[in-house]
Amino acid sequence: MMIKLKVGDKRSVKKIFTDSDVHEFSDLSLDKNPLHLDSSFAKETVFGQRIVHGMLVASLFSGLLGNDLAGKGGIYLGQSLNFTHPVFIDEEVTATVQVIKIREDKPIVTLRTFCVNSKGKIVIDGEAVVKVA
Amino acid sequence: MMIKLKVGDKRSVKKIFTDSDVHEFSDLSLDKNPLHLDSSFAKETVFGQRIVHGMLVASLFSGLLGNDLAGKGGIYLGQSLNFTHPVFIDEEVTATVQVIKIREDKPIVTLRTFCVNSKGKIVIDGEAVVKVA
Repeated sequence: MMIKLKVGDKRSVKKIFTDSDVHEFSDLSLDKNPLHLDSSFAKETVFGQRIVHGMLVASLFSGLLGNDLAGKGGIYLGQSLNFTHPVFIDEEVTATVQVIKIREDKPIVTLRTFCVNSKGKIVIDGEAVVKVA
Repeated sequence: MMIKLKVGDKRSVKKIFTDSDVHEFSDLSLDKNPLHLDSSFAKETVFGQRIVHGMLVASLFSGLLGNDLAGKGGIYLGQSLNFTHPVFIDEEVTATVQVIKIREDKPIVTLRTFCVNSKGKIVIDGEAVVKVA
């Protein structure tokens, strides 16, 4: 029940999602949208090329929260996500979670969760709510 | 730009997440929380056993939206998620997306997105916003 976090604390991680990652996630999520898997199809869309599943990119928040920030026994209560810009295959992204609110009565923390591409453009923005261990 | 959807339309899918699925998702998301991977650790938590990553279960919504409901060219704009109950390894879950609002001025649809376990208990609840093709 000890909360050692304070408002402003943050963690970040960088990752490049590869073609292999996207195929694995398609199998796990059953999301076979050709926008992620078929270059010919994707070329004709507004994006011009295949994009990484938004939920795969957003899964980095789960990792940042679960690995150390919320503690090993932390419990993920909620997550909001706005997908503001596409992420392309083999493009490096940086996901960040940052504490914005800590409840006084319970060990429940709200964090801004956002992800930027290599040009610094926000590709996902939202908030997570976590019960810390 | 043709929207053939109407309020109330829904799609569902069932899935059992296995130990192998959870390990693959841990690699993809970099989420190595022992709550998902280490039975001895998980046994001592409030859950009593290993649980599937909430974001992995939620990825089923991406599949339901991407495969047919929003159309192949559909664009995922947003998703909110409340993780209300744990999902255990090898437990069958049913994810459902259901249209609750269609904008009149733009092809933008809001859906309730929820997931129940085999006992009918809601494990994830939330909403998605999608631009349909």
